[in-house]
Amino acid sequence: MTRPTKASQVGALPWIGRSYIGTAPALPRGDRRAMEIPVSTARYDVVGIGNAIVDVIARAEEDFLIGHGMHKGGMQLIDEPRAHAIYDEMGPAIEISGGSAANTIVGAASFGARAAFVGKAKDDELGRTFAHDIRAAGVAFATPLAADGPATGRCYILVTPDGERTMNTYLGAAQHLAPEDVDAEVIAASAITYLEGYLWDPRNAKEAFRRAAALAHAAGRLVALSLSDAFCVDRWRDEFRDLVRGGTVDVLFANEAELKSLYQTADFATAAAALRQEARLAVVTRSEQGCVVVNSGGIEPVAAFPVERVVDTTGAGDLFAAGFLVGLARAASHETAARLGALAAAEVIGHLGARPETSLKALAAQHGL
Amino acid sequence: MTRPTKASQVGALPWIGRSYIGTAPALPRGDRRAMEIPVSTARYDVVGIGNAIVDVIARAEEDFLIGHGMHKGGMQLIDEPRAHAIYDEMGPAIEISGGSAANTIVGAASFGARAAFVGKAKDDELGRTFAHDIRAAGVAFATPLAADGPATGRCYILVTPDGERTMNTYLGAAQHLAPEDVDAEVIAASAITYLEGYLWDPRNAKEAFRRAAALAHAAGRLVALSLSDAFCVDRWRDEFRDLVRGGTVDVLFANEAELKSLYQTADFATAAAALRQEARLAVVTRSEQGCVVVNSGGIEPVAAFPVERVVDTTGAGDLFAAGFLVGLARAASHETAARLGALAAAEVIGHLGARPETSLKALAAQHGL
Repeated sequence: MTRPTKASQVGALPWIGRSYIGTAPALPRGDRRAMEIPVSTARYDVVGIGNAIVDVIARAEEDFLIGHGMHKGGMQLIDEPRAHAIYDEMGPAIEISGGSAANTIVGAASFGARAAFVGKAKDDELGRTFAHDIRAAGVAFATPLAADGPATGRCYILVTPDGERTMNTYLGAAQHLAPEDVDAEVIAASAITYLEGYLWDPRNAKEAFRRAAALAHAAGRLVALSLSDAFCVDRWRDEFRDLVRGGTVDVLFANEAELKSLYQTADFATAAAALRQEARLAVVTRSEQGCVVVNSGGIEPVAAFPVERVVDTTGAGDLFAAGFLVGLARAASHETAARLGALAAAEVIGHLGARPETSLKALAAQHGL
Repeated sequence: MTRPTKASQVGALPWIGRSYIGTAPALPRGDRRAMEIPVSTARYDVVGIGNAIVDVIARAEEDFLIGHGMHKGGMQLIDEPRAHAIYDEMGPAIEISGGSAANTIVGAASFGARAAFVGKAKDDELGRTFAHDIRAAGVAFATPLAADGPATGRCYILVTPDGERTMNTYLGAAQHLAPEDVDAEVIAASAITYLEGYLWDPRNAKEAFRRAAALAHAAGRLVALSLSDAFCVDRWRDEFRDLVRGGTVDVLFANEAELKSLYQTADFATAAAALRQEARLAVVTRSEQGCVVVNSGGIEPVAAFPVERVVDTTGAGDLFAAGFLVGLARAASHETAARLGALAAAEVIGHLGARPETSLKALAAQHGL
């Protein structure tokens, strides 16, 4: 295999399968797969847009999930009465800031990337907690906290003894993320705009999503999307496929279940082949089997990092995306980007919560990445 | 060494050095150190009274402590402006219910003991979190949440890379714990009333403490006290010594620094000898050196449990007390009680936060305790 030239600095943009960036130089020669875009044009390596959520995490037995009609491993949207009912019955919990794209952005910052986040919380205790945590992680976060309306969104997460997480999300204030919350200047100044599929659930947020994608492309930037959840894909399959096929999304993240749901097949190879036809660049994570990087050049498998003990899978996909995006922003090879993703995912599943507990930059250095 | 007979059931009371319980049978014969009190007389094995606190935990470097004038390993009381200043500058945090005695009581419940807690939180988000977490742990908690006044207390905890924790406590609503919050019936129905030394800081809580101790002794129950913190001992040395000498406290928990502060000596042996003169039963924890059990019979060392990696020492003393109290309530030998304490302490320092992440009952069973 030929080794691509790596850009040593965060802030460069990679060649991700075909030449689609108007301002890009000529196609790379020989063994060069990466091409560099001057760092100075991007103030942020990545800006994430997603639901601002605080996680409320407790351990539970399988029976609890069954007794409460929860789909193990999935994410269900819940209303306030159900939120209260679940909280009343779940075990002692810990509160940690979460939100899928927010976790990814915090992960990217932990790798040393310049990162920003857009998402809606309320000006209440949990909202101030969310804002503190993301800023303290080094992320620029300027979305105003809502003065009224529903409380800050929260996700009640039950972690079963096998480490699997089952999520129940009360969106609260997050559903009021509006197109005007998306700062055009920040999007234009970000090499990559990263969006979570969950944004497709609240109506206003969907409009914010569309606006951000349009702004990013108008500035010659990349748009990345995570499919978030197989049930979410089930709700919005046609629209997600249109986003990918129509070029609104340049980089797609999915896990195996989401990919199969997208193409309504139980066969991974069939789904991956369909994906290869439609996506510019996609990464499909497969838990302990690692991931595959899919583009017009082919389908390349990359191994997972070994994990001593899976404590809590919450955030595994989010952190994988963090590492991969950082790799893209550094114009690293897709293999290196995937290894950065796998490393970050391995860190986060080794403890409770979806935010890294250690510096991913230092961890990557330890692993020669 | 003679092996004491163990009571197999939680709910029995131990012989802790001399016969001071009016209703107790004759002194044990031969190798029997434990004597049993009928289970039916106690509805709870232990009731704890302490500050109701939610912990806000972040990792920090030593420089952060120095830059903010914090005493590493200690607990400082802070006012609201300082609380905001610290929070603004500390790293991403996680929120977990805490409070010294509350942690102990949750630990006791995790061992399968029947447990209750008395402490003051406000009816705000953190207060409802505190109430949820302690009840979800199986603890009876009936102290009404305050409708007004200061917010629920919180402790900003900085964990340095060596796992040591440095605490900054905004007492908030906790300082309004009043004597009338102490339910006479609950105290009378509890085999052991456990009090934290930190209660001596807020004026009203001190009165609640005195009332609880008097009620417990009036019902022929035991009173236990944790010295909490060396600086706390420094503030209240004479009063704490009076509590121990005067018989208000039957069982004393301290760590080495607290003991040395109590007797104002740098020499452990000197302090332990002084303690033996004054205390009925005391346990002094010495981190990785284990603990010593001190009573009129002598000073007996018990080893610590090996710990793979010290992640966060928060709650080590609290959980040690939990195990020891459970041992006392089961009329186990002091050695077994200390081993239960050491086991619980080892569990809690292996992860962030001061509440056990696993069933201590199951863990004890795994270790044949």
